[in-house]
Amino acid sequence: MLTYSLDAKKGVLLYEYIYECIKKDILSGKIKAGTKLPSKRAFAENLGVSTVTVENAYGQLMAEGYIYSEAKKGYYATDVTGIEEYHSKNTTSPQMAGFARANDTEPQKYSVDLTSNKADSEMFPFTIWAKLLREVINEKREELMDKAPAGGIFELRRAISEHLMQFRGIEVSPEQIIIGAGTEYLYGLLIQLLGRDKIYAVENPGYRKIYNIYKSNNAECVYIPMDEKGATVADIEHLGADVLHISPSHHFPTGTVMPVDRRYELLKWANSAGGRYIIEDDYDSEFRFSGKPVPAMFGMSANDKVIYMNTFTKSLASTVRISYMVLPFELIERFKENLSFYSCTVSNFEQYVLADFIEKGYFEKHINRMRNYCRKQRDALIKQISESKIAGITEIKEEDAGLHFLLKTRLNISDEELIKKTADSGLRISCLSQYYENPKDAPQHTLIINYSGISEAKIPEAVRLLCECVG
Amino acid sequence: MLTYSLDAKKGVLLYEYIYECIKKDILSGKIKAGTKLPSKRAFAENLGVSTVTVENAYGQLMAEGYIYSEAKKGYYATDVTGIEEYHSKNTTSPQMAGFARANDTEPQKYSVDLTSNKADSEMFPFTIWAKLLREVINEKREELMDKAPAGGIFELRRAISEHLMQFRGIEVSPEQIIIGAGTEYLYGLLIQLLGRDKIYAVENPGYRKIYNIYKSNNAECVYIPMDEKGATVADIEHLGADVLHISPSHHFPTGTVMPVDRRYELLKWANSAGGRYIIEDDYDSEFRFSGKPVPAMFGMSANDKVIYMNTFTKSLASTVRISYMVLPFELIERFKENLSFYSCTVSNFEQYVLADFIEKGYFEKHINRMRNYCRKQRDALIKQISESKIAGITEIKEEDAGLHFLLKTRLNISDEELIKKTADSGLRISCLSQYYENPKDAPQHTLIINYSGISEAKIPEAVRLLCECVG
Repeated sequence: MLTYSLDAKKGVLLYEYIYECIKKDILSGKIKAGTKLPSKRAFAENLGVSTVTVENAYGQLMAEGYIYSEAKKGYYATDVTGIEEYHSKNTTSPQMAGFARANDTEPQKYSVDLTSNKADSEMFPFTIWAKLLREVINEKREELMDKAPAGGIFELRRAISEHLMQFRGIEVSPEQIIIGAGTEYLYGLLIQLLGRDKIYAVENPGYRKIYNIYKSNNAECVYIPMDEKGATVADIEHLGADVLHISPSHHFPTGTVMPVDRRYELLKWANSAGGRYIIEDDYDSEFRFSGKPVPAMFGMSANDKVIYMNTFTKSLASTVRISYMVLPFELIERFKENLSFYSCTVSNFEQYVLADFIEKGYFEKHINRMRNYCRKQRDALIKQISESKIAGITEIKEEDAGLHFLLKTRLNISDEELIKKTADSGLRISCLSQYYENPKDAPQHTLIINYSGISEAKIPEAVRLLCECVG
Repeated sequence: MLTYSLDAKKGVLLYEYIYECIKKDILSGKIKAGTKLPSKRAFAENLGVSTVTVENAYGQLMAEGYIYSEAKKGYYATDVTGIEEYHSKNTTSPQMAGFARANDTEPQKYSVDLTSNKADSEMFPFTIWAKLLREVINEKREELMDKAPAGGIFELRRAISEHLMQFRGIEVSPEQIIIGAGTEYLYGLLIQLLGRDKIYAVENPGYRKIYNIYKSNNAECVYIPMDEKGATVADIEHLGADVLHISPSHHFPTGTVMPVDRRYELLKWANSAGGRYIIEDDYDSEFRFSGKPVPAMFGMSANDKVIYMNTFTKSLASTVRISYMVLPFELIERFKENLSFYSCTVSNFEQYVLADFIEKGYFEKHINRMRNYCRKQRDALIKQISESKIAGITEIKEEDAGLHFLLKTRLNISDEELIKKTADSGLRISCLSQYYENPKDAPQHTLIINYSGISEAKIPEAVRLLCECVG
């Protein structure tokens, strides 16, 4: 009978030790495939342990498949010759060896970063957020555990629909709103909804990330050139696009606001054939500094051809991953039919807190505060630039909305050299040309100045570094 | 010169009123395309308002594109004839009319639900969670605003890697771990990583949702039949699969634990050609009731062929959307190259809280508490069934792990009728056959009893309803 010395058992449970001994012998071939193991009781007596201990050891060996049982006959060793063969043929994995610690958690350090939209931690409403979280956790325990519908919890969708009515003049039912963990995620969902056989068009220049997302999802994606009003119907038709992805209220990075006549031309294009849609990416409409917000195209469309998207990642913090899209009725029906098996990607905790945050008026206050802050930042930065030595050799453009403006310079070096030069002195900037499909076709030497991500105290240093690099 | 009576202005700002008047006249054609508008100063004098008011009105009209300016000449009305044409051709949107209030927020009510994995709100560690949230909000304001790497914050990835080492015996570097808002989202990411040209294989029976996700992402997906040990290499090769998606530690719904010999056969298959991978979906490995956890295949693979996935949606709450995958080194490199442009889909707040929750030992305690709770639930339910009138005509199977067991009955009605019958009496159940590609090929009259989602107090009612329906 099998016998093991139990003296060698060190720091493991007795049943685990016996399990390990038998497993080792089966793997080494000492116990051959098909060998009958002793009965639990006899084996226990032989080892001087309780039957339960052997039972537990056999149980674990059974669970992992090293032995099997035959009813009323007993336990047998499994044929594991394939394992030995596997290990002899396959070299060990490189595992940790030679795998340098990834540096994605430690990006290059800059003393001033004019590319970031990162909210200043002074601006995030931590106190209110913490208070609402506490209330939600105290008062909504049942609801917090209830699975949300694919589109998100009703309370948040209702809050957003009321917000859209009040601040964007868009009248939508909460059911048309789909909540998701960031617009990037929602783009992926839209591709599943509209179809991978469609041709998607994005603006050139524009966020390259949007293009990358379409490509990464194997959807055909084309760049549409922009004239001074935005994308033209002629180009869209020439490129055979079905779905047009634009930011008519405030284009990044050019700052273009699409005028009303061009908007209707595009709506007419969308109406003139089936399956055409316009994705209106309204990512920073909250940040217009003068006058009323520009109306959304969604409200202009008579025939449900516009999908409206917006996000709280710009208005709250990029690290709070909540965005939404508003679907026309036809697409809501299709969404319910084809995609409602998905779970909503935002946790209930944050959905309930955000719903309260909007409904109790904190969001409006926060937006006003943010807008004032950004205006102040912009004004201070522009004032200091205009009083600096580069005032005469630079020109500021598109400063009326959003979280950035353009700074045209008269440099002779290439944009690539410029970015390297600024980086070397600790200033991170981006250039307009980086947002073009072909950077060589782009206006050169035009910096994009994102001012929402730097603190007021950093502005003099930012201007000093700008003077150093473009002066 | 343009003249408007300002008496009609009601409750709107003066500039807004002037803006509305001019806009209306441009849209109606009263002010024709190309007409020069009065200069701001002259117009202001004429209306008896300040120049700033006219400036604001013109500014808004400019922003929306109803007028345009020519340098040193003045302001002109835009050609908006396309708008009239658009509205005359397109009927008004159905909008809210006829759109019944979606009922996705109000699902059918059951008195007992044996299909749900919803955590009992008594079980969720609200107090600890709230405490950690408070600490994170107080102590990590800067970090909360810092954009996380695509794979998630380092602290959470490190906590998970330590947890995997301690509880699954898997040694991985934090950089191999990718955090995402639910496994469903991560499947979509994996398709982008591995390619849409691959053939993905899922187990039959199994979660239909996984199949749906592959299909919705236009990836070819095939069902692999299971024998008593799981999927076979013969079937996988016959169906030409490249990527095998399985749950070897505990298959849902059959409860099968894949034995060690079959595991190595599958690893050998994965090694024998390039581009082959095994996705190990370890969704409920925390809930094994007897013995040690079954080792993960990830740790057995010598050649980086296994992608490990797990989720906190089962162990914490389905409404906390945090899951992760562990990529082999080669795929981590590919992920960095191709997909690191994505933002992590889980908000920093929840990532930091979960990291603390794991690192401070609360997760281990919670899992133990959950396991005990589930074991108690299971024992009580099985005991009450075995003492009920259906004890003799039913058989309980696969009760050793996870959050469900199978209840074989001797009914003569179809599974469809059975589900309807139970639903009518307020009991929600699912049948094994519902998880088969072709329900007719499946074992009939076998109920899946998910016991994690009902409270202890509900067990007698659950058993009473079961007796009523299957007795």
